Amino acid sequence: MNNFDGLLEKIAQCSMKKLAVAVAQDDAVIEAVRAAKDRKIADAILVGDADKIKEVAASINTDISDFEIVDVKDNTEAALTAVKLVHDGKADMYMKGLIDTKGFLKSVLDKEVGLRTGKPLSHVALFEIEGYEKMMFLTDVAFIPYPTLEDKVGIINNTVEVAHACGIECPKVAPVAAVEVVNPKMPATVEAAELAKMNDEGKITGCIVDGPLSMDLAIDPEAARHKGATNRKIVGDADVIVFPDIHAGNLVYKTLVHTANVKNGCILTGTKAPVILTSRSDSFETKVNSIALAAIVAEELSK
Amino acid sequence: MNNFDGLLEKIAQCSMKKLAVAVAQDDAVIEAVRAAKDRKIADAILVGDADKIKEVAASINTDISDFEIVDVKDNTEAALTAVKLVHDGKADMYMKGLIDTKGFLKSVLDKEVGLRTGKPLSHVALFEIEGYEKMMFLTDVAFIPYPTLEDKVGIINNTVEVAHACGIECPKVAPVAAVEVVNPKMPATVEAAELAKMNDEGKITGCIVDGPLSMDLAIDPEAARHKGATNRKIVGDADVIVFPDIHAGNLVYKTLVHTANVKNGCILTGTKAPVILTSRSDSFETKVNSIALAAIVAEELSK
Repeated sequence: MNNFDGLLEKIAQCSMKKLAVAVAQDDAVIEAVRAAKDRKIADAILVGDADKIKEVAASINTDISDFEIVDVKDNTEAALTAVKLVHDGKADMYMKGLIDTKGFLKSVLDKEVGLRTGKPLSHVALFEIEGYEKMMFLTDVAFIPYPTLEDKVGIINNTVEVAHACGIECPKVAPVAAVEVVNPKMPATVEAAELAKMNDEGKITGCIVDGPLSMDLAIDPEAARHKGATNRKIVGDADVIVFPDIHAGNLVYKTLVHTANVKNGCILTGTKAPVILTSRSDSFETKVNSIALAAIVAEELSK
Repeated sequence: MNNFDGLLEKIAQCSMKKLAVAVAQDDAVIEAVRAAKDRKIADAILVGDADKIKEVAASINTDISDFEIVDVKDNTEAALTAVKLVHDGKADMYMKGLIDTKGFLKSVLDKEVGLRTGKPLSHVALFEIEGYEKMMFLTDVAFIPYPTLEDKVGIINNTVEVAHACGIECPKVAPVAAVEVVNPKMPATVEAAELAKMNDEGKITGCIVDGPLSMDLAIDPEAARHKGATNRKIVGDADVIVFPDIHAGNLVYKTLVHTANVKNGCILTGTKAPVILTSRSDSFETKVNSIALAAIVAEELSK
């Protein structure tokens, strides 16, 4: 599978998964869940102020009569109610509506009804990029600001699970940096080499890790050939890009979105069930793609 | 001027500038200086092993009979001879040939015949990006690993000079980060705000600095509108992107080169004359564009 159409085909073969939306009175979110249901990606339970949810749907001429609505006026309560639906197995994915990120994450991490697993939480963005043959996972571009080596192990483990769910049996994981050689003055390169070593030693499994890699060696086979990088495990064919920190990750992520021809979707991982935390600036298609990515991961977790 | 064609038109109106090439026996460099001369961007003096220079030129069927060749067999000596030509005003720009970066930079920084100014050296990459209306300067993506606040001031000053040379009277400078708000836990955002303040106070001049900015606010007018960023000085119309560190800068740079539709060229700045330090993995067009960028800057310095 090397594009979002492939992802949708795979989803079509599974039983339809269900989203629980926290504080669902948000026009962009209602639009996205409507499209997700129409495209048979996922159904949704809308938790929030029922009157406002109907009002917002009417204001954008969207029929939501076929969605289950759970009426909870208070936002904090609505989030806890929605996340509990996922916690209890009544829904398969959890999605943020008109609630601030902090309050939403508090519900995700709630000790009683939340989705904690003990694993670190991390964010993964899946990209289909015109001119790149594979789907590309970028991580972490939005959640962990300055990941430690241990965090990066968690990030890789979380992302490899998502890649497996997407049908990539042994993803190639590239911890990237400005240069492809270890430079003791650049901690990102030292940690990248350490991650590759942990992979060699069987401490990181289910994938191939090669680092440090510069971006061209990671994603451009021709550049890799040109640089004579024949002894590397990744030669321009990376599936997963692991960034040194959130600045590098987020700046690359947004550069791709705003300059290249791409499709993308994002989820939060390391949780019991996939969590969708799109921002208002994400496009409609990105929101729908995020639901699709979550559905694929939910299917894998249900096995 | 918003593309490389505009740059070339501007160059056509100036007197032809001259490159001094250090250790010129390099096929890719000879190809680039040949094209630069044919396109009337710049002439060149080839310093290095004359026999080898002629041999390499012959091996790629390139006529170099109209270039001045200075025969110096030893690489270190050749670099010092070439840089002295620039130092003495016999050439206008200095270019790296078949010599390692370290040895080349040593000649740039040579106290007697080098190109020191007392200003910090920094790297700037100029991009023409399909879909972005302006030329975009990225800095520093290749030279200063972890710039301090003081370094960033130097980087901005160097880059603003280059932007002025390119005809951009008051460039909009965006120190970018993962987020567009100051977060005390993210030093890059604190420094970005500090740079904007220094600009307000007249300590950084000739430009408008606004930061911290996320990449979408810096380069996407629609995203800036969508986020309601109307009170910012930069709303998706940045000319200069200043990166938190070399990882962020280099990863964005290579992502652009390998996924978007771009033209680009790079020079080293902060020197008496522009320095061209392309790498073997740079494309032929990038090398020629780098010479063009250097020529524009050399013209400005000659005034």
